[in-house]
Amino acid sequence: MSVRIAKNSGFCFGVKRAIKIALKTSKNNHEIVTLGSIIHNPQMVAKLESENILKVDNIEQIKGRPTIIRSHGIKKEILEELEKNNIEIINATCPYVSKTQDYAKSLSEDGYELIILGDRDHPEVKALRSYVDKEVIIVANADELVDKQFKKVGIISQTTRRVEDLQDLVKKLVPRCHEMRVINTICNATTIRQNSTLALARESDIMIVVGGKNSSNTKMLARICESFVKTYHIETACEIDRKWFKDKQDIGLTAGASTPDWIIVEVYNEILECIGNINKVDKIEDIPGFKEE
Amino acid sequence: MSVRIAKNSGFCFGVKRAIKIALKTSKNNHEIVTLGSIIHNPQMVAKLESENILKVDNIEQIKGRPTIIRSHGIKKEILEELEKNNIEIINATCPYVSKTQDYAKSLSEDGYELIILGDRDHPEVKALRSYVDKEVIIVANADELVDKQFKKVGIISQTTRRVEDLQDLVKKLVPRCHEMRVINTICNATTIRQNSTLALARESDIMIVVGGKNSSNTKMLARICESFVKTYHIETACEIDRKWFKDKQDIGLTAGASTPDWIIVEVYNEILECIGNINKVDKIEDIPGFKEE
Repeated sequence: MSVRIAKNSGFCFGVKRAIKIALKTSKNNHEIVTLGSIIHNPQMVAKLESENILKVDNIEQIKGRPTIIRSHGIKKEILEELEKNNIEIINATCPYVSKTQDYAKSLSEDGYELIILGDRDHPEVKALRSYVDKEVIIVANADELVDKQFKKVGIISQTTRRVEDLQDLVKKLVPRCHEMRVINTICNATTIRQNSTLALARESDIMIVVGGKNSSNTKMLARICESFVKTYHIETACEIDRKWFKDKQDIGLTAGASTPDWIIVEVYNEILECIGNINKVDKIEDIPGFKEE
Repeated sequence: MSVRIAKNSGFCFGVKRAIKIALKTSKNNHEIVTLGSIIHNPQMVAKLESENILKVDNIEQIKGRPTIIRSHGIKKEILEELEKNNIEIINATCPYVSKTQDYAKSLSEDGYELIILGDRDHPEVKALRSYVDKEVIIVANADELVDKQFKKVGIISQTTRRVEDLQDLVKKLVPRCHEMRVINTICNATTIRQNSTLALARESDIMIVVGGKNSSNTKMLARICESFVKTYHIETACEIDRKWFKDKQDIGLTAGASTPDWIIVEVYNEILECIGNINKVDKIEDIPGFKEE
């Protein structure tokens, strides 16, 4: 029996950066807040609370405290309201997400009807959409557009979508529009992580995907694995059931961009416990297969 | 046994227009010339010679006569040379081809590395390419690009290519470029004719494709038919061999955008002759299946 982790599992650049900004800000202040979850990982959010980095859900709850803008960004209107209320803003929006907001704005200003490939209920997409004054079409896949025709269409994507879905959307639209401008806003780390996960899923009998149930990129990893092998999406080691590993030889592990290393290590050690292996590890780098590209 | 013609066979808008311009110009002049074949149909070119519309191959042969610019356009440098020599120019370039030249120029000026989907040896593509001062990539399909990466790429197509090839090119490039601007310059009439031909080929035991052997869009029709059924690409009725129709029930006929009606009628009547059917026709509209959309 082997347990291996997909290369490039765990925190991405944007998440690392957001947490670093939050921790640095909290050092110089008694209490700070994040407007919405700073990242989509409930365990990490709970851990930050112990460092006096508190999550609030609306402007009224801020009560004058310095406010971190979460990694997925927030709506333009809310940002403007914070500014109007003279709240100290520390922007931890992932730079790739900010760039996507700029592209949405400029495509729309250049006269392109905008299509966003993404989940309309995800905070990143909600924020993205707010940067465009005109109507925006948000689709999870090409089929949602049915037979709609376009004159001049601009296409961008939520940073954590699958590049294959963007390819499919673009391909299907070619005969239906005169002009199409596509900016590939899918984060490269996302694509690399998805490919590493897919490669491991192909070689495994079971996949354990670790990350927030509210994490879009983690859910996407689970969806990729499901098409190859029995897959469980868990947030913490407590959810593991030893029955899952009965008769399994090759166990694969992967984690979303917002899953902290300590949770991944706990999950790995719990799997070892279940299969009667005593070679536990202290850090993610020691899990077989781990590598950052 | 039935003989049917694909809907939308024969002259397209651009070809009709070029010939009309040439005939009108020849009325007011003793002799006029076309620089290169006005359309890619040797029989029509020969017929126009009888109306004193003569084909020349280079500027030296013009000798002061009014000069028609053919439907596929000519290179920018040659047009400039004609102007410099004070030659009377009558531009019969298809407006869709001219538009494509404008797009090539503006994409390049806007900083996009230009890819043309097309045949690098075709006059339309040679002319198109000449409107861009920078390097241009010309490919017949996506695979020719291998793994090349792009920052900002502009994509246009020869007007007579298959939209499926443009879709494939665009799809394969999505993960390999940051920004992509695609202008669908494939002539709508081309797509409609290809689809009508494909539909008829699916229902036929044999396909006869009529048009110039040098005609790009006719060759494309033949290629489409070949993937379904035995196909013969001919220029005139003389090439028909009655053995082709032995044991065939459903005979399909189609013709390129530069094939004149009288040739199509001759071919149709010759096929009837071969299969012992006496219901000959005088005009294309009387051929079963004929319809313009």
